[in-house]
Amino acid sequence: MKLVEEKILHDSKILNGDVLKVSNFLNHQLDIQFLNEIGKEFFRLFSDCKITKILTIESSGIAIACIAAQYFHVPVVFAKKSKTTNISSDFYSEEAKSYTHGNHYSAIVEKQFISPNDTFLIIDDFLANGKALHALFSLVEKAGAKIAGAGIVIEKTYQQGGEKLRENGYRIESLARIASMSPEDGIKFVN
Amino acid sequence: MKLVEEKILHDSKILNGDVLKVSNFLNHQLDIQFLNEIGKEFFRLFSDCKITKILTIESSGIAIACIAAQYFHVPVVFAKKSKTTNISSDFYSEEAKSYTHGNHYSAIVEKQFISPNDTFLIIDDFLANGKALHALFSLVEKAGAKIAGAGIVIEKTYQQGGEKLRENGYRIESLARIASMSPEDGIKFVN
Repeated sequence: MKLVEEKILHDSKILNGDVLKVSNFLNHQLDIQFLNEIGKEFFRLFSDCKITKILTIESSGIAIACIAAQYFHVPVVFAKKSKTTNISSDFYSEEAKSYTHGNHYSAIVEKQFISPNDTFLIIDDFLANGKALHALFSLVEKAGAKIAGAGIVIEKTYQQGGEKLRENGYRIESLARIASMSPEDGIKFVN
Repeated sequence: MKLVEEKILHDSKILNGDVLKVSNFLNHQLDIQFLNEIGKEFFRLFSDCKITKILTIESSGIAIACIAAQYFHVPVVFAKKSKTTNISSDFYSEEAKSYTHGNHYSAIVEKQFISPNDTFLIIDDFLANGKALHALFSLVEKAGAKIAGAGIVIEKTYQQGGEKLRENGYRIESLARIASMSPEDGIKFVN
């Protein structure tokens, strides 16, 4: 999606350690108008999939999922990364590893929010090594629900998480696909 | 707001330890249509305040803030509870304590996202002891920006966090104000 690529070229910054900083529009400050265009595009891509729920993971996925959900007219469920006192004991849990935090965590969803009758669209901001997305797919499958696919804003294709998941049959739509990036040579997108 | 009180009476659960579980519409599964009505109400309350940005804190505040921001046509900034590798070294930080997690944390916002020219509306799901809200007010004030007030979905007035903040001159608008709650006697709202 041209809009996302242009936004990345204009407003992001490449940090050391292969981190793309998009904090002024996607995961710290949120450009709501931009998220709206993203939501519209996810709806265009998945509008014929009979989505009944959107699943994402805290925190950065929540904004994107909520704005997109307005087009699908479905609820959002966000997986939690820690067990709070208000989570029931009846939950699904999957191990994952954070790229930006560098730690392992469990993605947790209460069982009551994933029914076998549901068809899920999964939404997240980044796809790099694919650990978070794989955890979300697994949560849905444990419950016997259907997965229509995943809508991702930025994929780093050179980290191959997306490739592996697609090989396993998942439909993944990424709005901007980064083939390479470095502070010296900048960002190159997949054509 | 009648809609919020009715939603609480219908869809929430009182857990031990004075926890109101609203996970099926407000902070785990998100009822987007309901959030839209909340966003509209916050806009009605603060539409004449020349809001330039909305500030909230991860995670549950993000959904509410984003949906509301569509009415104000302003960006959302969400404070983080941990320092990720993609946060710059130039940030404001305030100590707070989580009611549901039971731990202390720092509310962190990069300095570039709070300018002295901004007028902030602060949005959050719960107001109980007021620690999180106080931390958000302090972040904004450190930067010399203006605070129009806070929009809260559910306030537990018996925990007095809101009362103390109002005594200090802050405008706080809570859509449902719980005067008391217990598994035995249920929920009573402030009239």
